[in-house]
Order: sequence, then C-alpha cells, then structure tokens
Amino acid sequence: MEVKNYLLDYNNLFIIQDTNMFSFSLDSVLLANFATINKACNKILDIGTGNAPIPLMLSTKTDSKIVGVEIQKEVSDLAKKSVEINSLENQIKIVNEDINDFYLKCESDSFDVITCNPPYFKDCIINNSLYKTVARHENFLTLNKICKISKKVLKNKGNLVLVHRPERFVEIIDEMRKNNIEPKRVRFVYPKIGKEANILLIEGKKNGRPGLKILDPLYVHSDDGSYTFEVEKFFKGEKNDSE
Amino acid sequence: MEVKNYLLDYNNLFIIQDTNMFSFSLDSVLLANFATINKACNKILDIGTGNAPIPLMLSTKTDSKIVGVEIQKEVSDLAKKSVEINSLENQIKIVNEDINDFYLKCESDSFDVITCNPPYFKDCIINNSLYKTVARHENFLTLNKICKISKKVLKNKGNLVLVHRPERFVEIIDEMRKNNIEPKRVRFVYPKIGKEANILLIEGKKNGRPGLKILDPLYVHSDDGSYTFEVEKFFKGEKNDSE
Repeated sequence: MEVKNYLLDYNNLFIIQDTNMFSFSLDSVLLANFATINKACNKILDIGTGNAPIPLMLSTKTDSKIVGVEIQKEVSDLAKKSVEINSLENQIKIVNEDINDFYLKCESDSFDVITCNPPYFKDCIINNSLYKTVARHENFLTLNKICKISKKVLKNKGNLVLVHRPERFVEIIDEMRKNNIEPKRVRFVYPKIGKEANILLIEGKKNGRPGLKILDPLYVHSDDGSYTFEVEKFFKGEKNDSE
Repeated sequence: MEVKNYLLDYNNLFIIQDTNMFSFSLDSVLLANFATINKACNKILDIGTGNAPIPLMLSTKTDSKIVGVEIQKEVSDLAKKSVEINSLENQIKIVNEDINDFYLKCESDSFDVITCNPPYFKDCIINNSLYKTVARHENFLTLNKICKISKKVLKNKGNLVLVHRPERFVEIIDEMRKNNIEPKRVRFVYPKIGKEANILLIEGKKNGRPGLKILDPLYVHSDDGSYTFEVEKFFKGEKNDSE
C-alpha cells in the first residue's frame, strides 16, 4: 500500500487522508453539520468511521465522547493518527473492529447519537481497491444491520443520523421503523437548482413519535459550478444557522 | 345551504365553487400539474373529487376518460355543473357516491391513474361545516383505504398520485408499499426559500420496482409574498417543463 497523506484544514482541525483509500468527502461534511447534538449528549458512535472525518468534525461542536469503529486496519491507523495530531485522544476513541462484532460488546441503551456514512450500494461488487469496496458496497455492513445495531445500543430517544442516496429512502424508512427508529428530520441535497436530489440526510429517533420534518433544500453548487455559500461554510467548519 | 358560485379561469376552463364548502385550492393545482399522464392513458379515477378541480384541470392535458367520485351530494352537484359549463360531459363523469362503495363495483385493474387530494388530518373532529369536515378529516376516507382501493382498481404499472402533508410521508410510504404500490416520484413544496416543506406530492406505481426520485423543490412564494413564476404558470394552466 502506497500511503499518501493529505492534511486538510477544517475549523483548525487536521484530517489525514489517503486518496488510494478514500477521501474526506462532501457526504461526511454534510452529515457532521446536519446531526443534532444536544448539550446533554455524552456518547456518540460513528459506524464505519473511515479516516474519522465525522468524529473529528463533531468534536468541534460537542464535548461528548466519540467512538469511531473501522473494520480496515490501515484506514483506522490513519484515523488514529489524525486523532493524535489534533490532541483529541481524550475525546475520540478509534476502534479497529468489525462493527458487527463490536456492538455485541456494547451496553444496551448506551449511546446518545449514532452517525454513519454507510456503503451506498446494495450489490457486492469487488472493486480494484479493497478499501473502496468496503466503503461503498454492503458486503460488510447493510442498512438492515445499521438499524438493528442502533435499536440495541441507542438510548431511548437517541438519534440515528445517516447520509445516503435518495433512491434508497423508502428502504431506509422501512428499516428504521422495523427497528423502532422513527424518521424525524430529512434534508435533501441537490447538486444545483433544477436538478433531482442526489444526497439524503436523515435523522431518526429511537422510540420517537411519528411526524417527519422535511427541512429546506440544500444546494451544493451555484450555477457557475462553485460551492454555494452554505456548503462553503460547512467545509470551513463554520457553525450553521440551526445550531 | 347558501350557495355562492365563483367562476375561476384556468386555461380557459371555468370551475364553479362555493367558499362555504371548500375552494379550488393550491393543492389541487399542484397535483394536476405533478401527475404523470401518458398518451396511452385512457381511464383516470379522482377520489374525493369535491367540485372536480382535478378532473377539470387534467382534461386540459389528456383525452383520457376521467371519473370523479364525491360522497357529498351538494358538492358533486357543483362538480356536475362545472363539467356541463365546460362541455366536458363526454370526458368527465361525476359520481355521487361513497368511494368505499363505488370501488367495489369497479373492475379490477381498470384505471391507468388514480388521483386524490385526500383529507389530511387523522383525527375525526367535526367542524362547523360538514363539507369541510368530510374534506379535511379522515372520517370517511383513510390513507389506508385509498391505497387498498388503488391496489384493486389500478392497472398493473398504473400510478397513484397524491398531494398530502410531509409529516405523514412515512405513513404514506408504508401504506403504499403494503398495497404493492412503489413510491417512484416525490416533489416537496416549500412555502418559500429557507422554510420547511409543507406540501408533499407523491406518485407510486402498482407493482413498480423500488427506486425513488426526489424532484427539484417547488417554492410557492417569492420573498415579496407573490406566487413564484412556476406556481403562477400552474394556476394559469400553462404546461410545465417536464411535459
């Protein structure tokens, strides 16, 4: 494995990544900004944390402890390095383990929030890069499993927050509800004005009451191709209006 | 009953309404514009047709036969008058009957499209106006029943098109899927930029394959409070771009 490290600046935070594996992505930035993190929150789980962009970004908006679980050794090593560089070892713990094994050892009802930027594709194609295969395809982590894990380890009224693809929205709702997680907040993300949504942000509450809010649409690009003002703010780690 | 008739101009169409009952609404306009009506379509059912705004508006974009069913006698009489004034008796048939009885007499798999602007509220409150109670509350027509009826009388691959409230989106998806209607197209309608969606347009296909499209957002009002250009076009009955 040829490791190339990149340092990215996000709210004075450094995130190491290797483009041979996968990169700090728009999806993770959107998820970290979308998630509702209350002041009382004291334990967050990030499933399939990769090089830990979500725990790192969340650390700028909460003092909660954050556990990031990553199945791939080399990727979790990068995550650990980023945590060290930012001196966040007291807040963020990276675990190199299959979440399907890890959660069995977790106490029930122990996390306030679970975040996940999961594999989007249902099929089990093997890419040239094993790293990318694991991150993108549901070989090791299905939507069903994410919801089952959340049902077990989320506290009562705790939130599961996902970034996903709109075409799987119906299935996400099904899986959440089968596991007593009620979809409560959704934000659709559009590449630009006039296009269909291509990213879905969704937050569900364990044992929540029915009633869904569809937040205002988020546009990623302006007509000239540049990031919109709102997304640019997200990338810089600036607080958004809803916080 | 004090009947006041209003004539509204929509693409050279006259629609009679009585504000004591309920009025030709934005919801119906949005639904009529949103519905996919193929050229091969030859039979449409509008459930709870009221004073028939949806059949009347659809008649401007299809030659298909349209049946509008309305439980309330006085309201269906207004609908019949509008059909006559517009000389559309050959295309639109208004039936004064409870849809729960009517559909039992329909052939299975006989409609290409079902449209419905249903009661939005789950509870069974009785308003001062019986007309408004029936139109707004699920006393006589539940979401579950609409989907059951559609399962029976829609052709294979026929579409059910609803306008509803976003907070009931999850339930709509549940009910559709329980009845083999797969949600395929959704458009959220926002009162203005920066606000949550307050209207949901959804189209599901009987025995359709999973895969949902979230269309571009529709804004109703501009910052100055006037209708947006797109909604203004809808009110005038002008064709939209997707047709």
